[in-house]
Amino acid sequence: MFSHIDETLINALKEDLGSGDVTTAALIPEDHVSEALLVAKGDIVLAGLPFAERVFQLVDSSLIFKSLKREGSRVGKGSIIARAKGKTAGLLIAERTALNLLQRMSGIATLTNEYIEAVRGLNVAITDTRKTAPGLRFFDKYAVSMGGGMNHRYGLYDGVLIKDNHIAAAGGVGKAVKLARASAHHLLKIEVEVNNISEVKEALSAGADIIMLDNMDVDMMKKAVGVIRQKKSGVLIEASGNMNLDNIREAAETGVDLISVGALTHSAPAADLSLQIRSV
Amino acid sequence: MFSHIDETLINALKEDLGSGDVTTAALIPEDHVSEALLVAKGDIVLAGLPFAERVFQLVDSSLIFKSLKREGSRVGKGSIIARAKGKTAGLLIAERTALNLLQRMSGIATLTNEYIEAVRGLNVAITDTRKTAPGLRFFDKYAVSMGGGMNHRYGLYDGVLIKDNHIAAAGGVGKAVKLARASAHHLLKIEVEVNNISEVKEALSAGADIIMLDNMDVDMMKKAVGVIRQKKSGVLIEASGNMNLDNIREAAETGVDLISVGALTHSAPAADLSLQIRSV
Amino acid sequence: MFSHIDETLINALKEDLGSGDVTTAALIPEDHVSEALLVAKGDIVLAGLPFAERVFQLVDSSLIFKSLKREGSRVGKGSIIARAKGKTAGLLIAERTALNLLQRMSGIATLTNEYIEAVRGLNVAITDTRKTAPGLRFFDKYAVSMGGGMNHRYGLYDGVLIKDNHIAAAGGVGKAVKLARASAHHLLKIEVEVNNISEVKEALSAGADIIMLDNMDVDMMKKAVGVIRQKKSGVLIEASGNMNLDNIREAAETGVDLISVGALTHSAPAADLSLQIRSV
Amino acid sequence: MFSHIDETLINALKEDLGSGDVTTAALIPEDHVSEALLVAKGDIVLAGLPFAERVFQLVDSSLIFKSLKREGSRVGKGSIIARAKGKTAGLLIAERTALNLLQRMSGIATLTNEYIEAVRGLNVAITDTRKTAPGLRFFDKYAVSMGGGMNHRYGLYDGVLIKDNHIAAAGGVGKAVKLARASAHHLLKIEVEVNNISEVKEALSAGADIIMLDNMDVDMMKKAVGVIRQKKSGVLIEASGNMNLDNIREAAETGVDLISVGALTHSAPAADLSLQIRSV
Amino acid sequence: MFSHIDETLINALKEDLGSGDVTTAALIPEDHVSEALLVAKGDIVLAGLPFAERVFQLVDSSLIFKSLKREGSRVGKGSIIARAKGKTAGLLIAERTALNLLQRMSGIATLTNEYIEAVRGLNVAITDTRKTAPGLRFFDKYAVSMGGGMNHRYGLYDGVLIKDNHIAAAGGVGKAVKLARASAHHLLKIEVEVNNISEVKEALSAGADIIMLDNMDVDMMKKAVGVIRQKKSGVLIEASGNMNLDNIREAAETGVDLISVGALTHSAPAADLSLQIRSV
Amino acid sequence: MFSHIDETLINALKEDLGSGDVTTAALIPEDHVSEALLVAKGDIVLAGLPFAERVFQLVDSSLIFKSLKREGSRVGKGSIIARAKGKTAGLLIAERTALNLLQRMSGIATLTNEYIEAVRGLNVAITDTRKTAPGLRFFDKYAVSMGGGMNHRYGLYDGVLIKDNHIAAAGGVGKAVKLARASAHHLLKIEVEVNNISEVKEALSAGADIIMLDNMDVDMMKKAVGVIRQKKSGVLIEASGNMNLDNIREAAETGVDLISVGALTHSAPAADLSLQIRSV
Repeated sequence: MFSHIDETLINALKEDLGSGDVTTAALIPEDHVSEALLVAKGDIVLAGLPFAERVFQLVDSSLIFKSLKREGSRVGKGSIIARAKGKTAGLLIAERTALNLLQRMSGIATLTNEYIEAVRGLNVAITDTRKTAPGLRFFDKYAVSMGGGMNHRYGLYDGVLIKDNHIAAAGGVGKAVKLARASAHHLLKIEVEVNNISEVKEALSAGADIIMLDNMDVDMMKKAVGVIRQKKSGVLIEASGNMNLDNIREAAETGVDLISVGALTHSAPAADLSLQIRSV
Repeated sequence: MFSHIDETLINALKEDLGSGDVTTAALIPEDHVSEALLVAKGDIVLAGLPFAERVFQLVDSSLIFKSLKREGSRVGKGSIIARAKGKTAGLLIAERTALNLLQRMSGIATLTNEYIEAVRGLNVAITDTRKTAPGLRFFDKYAVSMGGGMNHRYGLYDGVLIKDNHIAAAGGVGKAVKLARASAHHLLKIEVEVNNISEVKEALSAGADIIMLDNMDVDMMKKAVGVIRQKKSGVLIEASGNMNLDNIREAAETGVDLISVGALTHSAPAADLSLQIRSV
Repeated sequence: MFSHIDETLINALKEDLGSGDVTTAALIPEDHVSEALLVAKGDIVLAGLPFAERVFQLVDSSLIFKSLKREGSRVGKGSIIARAKGKTAGLLIAERTALNLLQRMSGIATLTNEYIEAVRGLNVAITDTRKTAPGLRFFDKYAVSMGGGMNHRYGLYDGVLIKDNHIAAAGGVGKAVKLARASAHHLLKIEVEVNNISEVKEALSAGADIIMLDNMDVDMMKKAVGVIRQKKSGVLIEASGNMNLDNIREAAETGVDLISVGALTHSAPAADLSLQIRSV
Repeated sequence: MFSHIDETLINALKEDLGSGDVTTAALIPEDHVSEALLVAKGDIVLAGLPFAERVFQLVDSSLIFKSLKREGSRVGKGSIIARAKGKTAGLLIAERTALNLLQRMSGIATLTNEYIEAVRGLNVAITDTRKTAPGLRFFDKYAVSMGGGMNHRYGLYDGVLIKDNHIAAAGGVGKAVKLARASAHHLLKIEVEVNNISEVKEALSAGADIIMLDNMDVDMMKKAVGVIRQKKSGVLIEASGNMNLDNIREAAETGVDLISVGALTHSAPAADLSLQIRSV
Repeated sequence: MFSHIDETLINALKEDLGSGDVTTAALIPEDHVSEALLVAKGDIVLAGLPFAERVFQLVDSSLIFKSLKREGSRVGKGSIIARAKGKTAGLLIAERTALNLLQRMSGIATLTNEYIEAVRGLNVAITDTRKTAPGLRFFDKYAVSMGGGMNHRYGLYDGVLIKDNHIAAAGGVGKAVKLARASAHHLLKIEVEVNNISEVKEALSAGADIIMLDNMDVDMMKKAVGVIRQKKSGVLIEASGNMNLDNIREAAETGVDLISVGALTHSAPAADLSLQIRSV
Repeated sequence: MFSHIDETLINALKEDLGSGDVTTAALIPEDHVSEALLVAKGDIVLAGLPFAERVFQLVDSSLIFKSLKREGSRVGKGSIIARAKGKTAGLLIAERTALNLLQRMSGIATLTNEYIEAVRGLNVAITDTRKTAPGLRFFDKYAVSMGGGMNHRYGLYDGVLIKDNHIAAAGGVGKAVKLARASAHHLLKIEVEVNNISEVKEALSAGADIIMLDNMDVDMMKKAVGVIRQKKSGVLIEASGNMNLDNIREAAETGVDLISVGALTHSAPAADLSLQIRSV
């Protein structure tokens, strides 16, 4: 299938390969064949396997890749995740790009899953943000969903989210919500960021579909949720701002519907994975 | 100047902007003007400022961007790093992409600098690896250098690095080194990975220019350094494998010339930066 | 500004210019200078002027282009719309591509405006569809908005629109609406296509945000509008299917909120415009 | 085969799909299979079928597409033109792009064929112009040929056509023709536009290979044809300017060899075609 | 101006620069300024200067480039052709790409000019062929024209040239010419390759516009020219096949109109040019 | 495999094919099948066969191509090198691009081999330079290796080579070598160009890994080699500057390790090859 995915993978392969793998060219006979095992070196949630497979195919379409674990599943240290077989040169050229992708994506999925565990039992969704690595938004957001998170809008084009700067330019929360409703196409809801209870009320009156409580402390969040639930059904409430594993459960317990967490994609440490290649 | 840099930045802008910023289109008058302040929200080493500036220019060439801090310098919490001024719509469209880049790069520079501090006073270089985010190698490696680190080879094309799989296929450390020397062009040195003292000796005999001690414990590293220094001058020694801020000083004290650290680029948490926009 | 727009314009210029304009190369001295007048040869609503200007700039950045009429305005036969001046060779190379764009876009804007006139006084929006020329969606939709129409979703990515095939696969209107609500991100509304009053009710019960009356006759449309307005406020109603200038007012009078018209973009005849070039 | 065709089709698919089909992702199970029937909803001349097939293949190479009607043939209302089968998600994603292409191309072929019918029995060719949709020249011209029309030059690069502006810059019809002959490569003929009988004679004297009668009334066309036929054999005569279905036969009866009609590609209404998908 | 030219130049710069000029980065201070003189080291016909200038601009738009000799002129050994001034780093990065282009193009122009000199006084054009370096056809053909040669068709798309394989498939010279006339658009002439006098006559009868005498010896060429000139005026005659500086005058004296020479573009030795850089 | 190779080949095909092969379209029935023989018309060293095969595949993946000679082997006049079979149209469209590539590459391989023969028996490598055709560096360098030559660095990025301009800017040979060593990554050796014996000594003292004797006469070269060999083992010596088939053996006899020859890639005449197509 045509897609941006291949473009990103090929771009990553090209930046690594450049004018050629001088070490492999010198040392690996053209017909030398190996098997490579993809092994988890820690306890992780797996994400990125289909794209890793695609990396191997792009390098050498005759390589055989077999996934042994399910995307999105939790995998214990030492588990063999996949097996690739074919010409050694291709395996070596694909190795680092495939691992870089898998380590990043599984790192994001694993961290996301920790947040999911932290709010277990509560009726709240954990969502990502647009704070993704430049050029890797699809992969980052896909990894969040593999970890159990929910995706927020993909970009500036598929969701209206009115922030403080928009509000200032428009002349207030209420005016901003109404302007947005008049301009955005009818399939888009209107979400607006608020900083205090007065803005919460203004947003409600103006007909906001979703209200984002930005950087509020827990007490104000509780109060805001109360005001909204009382006044109008069907309005979604999102909490946002400096959420971490220590404070997220408390935030979730205020009754908000969603909590967005930038760290999922901008600060997840890489998952530890390795590729073990041996001649066959 | 022509370059891959613009392609990467434009690609990142496009994935965020898609068919247009529906919120800004609805709310920001075309001629509305603002000033944006780039502010550090933590103590960081700054990296990526010229590229952030370029993001603003690519969105709207009439935006004026002024850096107030020096790339690579340490910047305290609350510092104003740069000031951008011009049409509000452009500032808002550029905001997230510029921040995503700066937060990642400054995060890498800041972490790198912690490693540099950890080995202060010792004659050792801290280098990155090829464990970078797919498509962002240039930016990741540039950030390492801003943090005081040294760049290892850029990819498979500009350096010979013989790893265990190459050695297995070639039939031993010595054979591999000799094959590489015969094949790679004369401007490239030969680095070989070794796992024990016997391989160290074989590498030396075969004429390796650089010897990488892979995943050795400190005792074996010391012994390896001793063997190499005694036998041959001019050979560089690199330590590699699971280096972290706790163990790097001890490793450095063994007398190796370089230590490569994957975490610099695959696990650096984002630096905390924000863009504050206000009408003018 | 970076954009897909330039890519499309350059692509159009390249398909016309190929390896060079052999006639101009033979006949027009390099320093020959002309003035070109863009003239309306019929009564039209103008759309595409900024892109026509960009075409001239892409061919020769020293050409001076001055718009004399406002984008989106109605322009009478014989009106001079814009004036371009500079090297004759550049004017001649840009001419056809600029005109092809303007004629298509002004044709769409003019036709859209006829629909707007046809429903004048009624509280209904005329929207486009995804039935645009391949590769020209942005330009086609922009032209609709210049003609006074409203844009529907841009593509498959920025709006949920459940059609009969989705319903069949999901097992009914109600199930489909609920599945969509559970899966799409929270900033997107759910629109569903219905064919009869029973489906209208099912859609309402399932919580559809927008109901599209597909190919209904006027009587059924009236009945559907009645059912919806009675049961639930805030639900938008769209009419769709074989709308034309003869039947649109009657459809609008049923009280629907929006009517989508494929012909706006797939069957608008070109507006008649010409470029008159003379030496200066 | 490598080609610009795929680039155009992929571009069209991308502008529709963007970051993904949110409706299909929510509602269609990954392994759901359907059959799609492409049906004519009016009497049309078919054009674009191989490209529609390619669209389905680009979306999902496992889709099976079978044409039931011949490209270029006339197809009656209700006819099944092709059958596609495979995963429902792929069929739905390809549907609109394939239809947009087919509707435009068949619209052009159908209109062209009306012109062909209008001059039936006369020895005249109906040709297209360069007035095509930006980026779609290949498809537009191909559709004209499917409708029985003849293609004029593809662009500025593969034919010399001297227009009034060239003549003015060169200093007259005769001078222009001679300059063109001296400069263009020897495989290209020289066509020149003339507005009156005096220019016809000048063009003949200068050795023009083809003479285009621009916007002449029927009487002057007859006279021009007479002058040319008498003076010189082998010279082709083209009529051009505001030709439509009402006046083309009269123009053709003047004895010209070709008549070029801009409307074929800039004002053809879309052919009415639909894709009916059902689960299997 | 948009063009394929920049794409080719950037591509050439990228293949040389890759991830960066490691030598210049190490040794040249960022603000170091130099002047570079482009010097002829032999007697050459100059071609490519505007493109060399563009290379410098693409590397660093602040470099100042001043041509001192005219494109297409003959330049003696030691002549200073151009002067560039600005940052040393940019000059060094642009140097090799600019020189590679200039040396190739001036080599072609110089060789072409030797052929022109060899037929001085005869009424014959020397033309190139499609035997150009892959990807460099525009540059190669431009260089031929700078050397005084004439360009043949640019590619397969802008001229009909019937070769032996086409003739075999079509069933004879006459049939082939007629088929081509019926199919190619009316602005293209028909050229056909012939191998003997019988084919010459067949081509004439069928109405070929241009006859190419392929690999004939001088006697047969003379006879062919006689037959053609006698039978029909206005038919052009091209000679082709293994032409070199030793035999071209004799071929030209047979009275043919054009002689095509593959060696102009596939075997021209590089012109000797150097860039002398000195600090200022 | 993903690669720049296909991009270059497709680019070359596109510049030849443009909007289509008008001759083949007119004359070759779609299902006409032929066999094509690739024949050497002189005694050559073969290079480029896999890329020629790829050209045929890119044009029509159903074409069958069979190599009968080995890449890099010497092939006598009249030898059949390869056989291609399939649709005639595809063979004709691929013909010129495949031949242009093969003729250039085999020309380079054949010339390189003459240099190899000229130094037969001496312990010296013949290397190429960066003086390649713009955009064709990979193909040019590959051809050199097929002819028995050694590849020098690929570009500015994979080798440090300090030239006179760098030395001037750095303030002397010794300073330049030391600066380069401090800045380039540890896998790169340092090569420096010297012009006299004093610079040779300075380079040695500064620790240069490779010394390039630039444009020295044979006597100075001998002296330089003597000085270097005496002072330090392991330093490589390269000779460079105006080497040709007449003077290269004498240069090689001075004892240098490598001699770089620009003419290999900038002045090799095309090898004479043809494609003979016949119906089957």
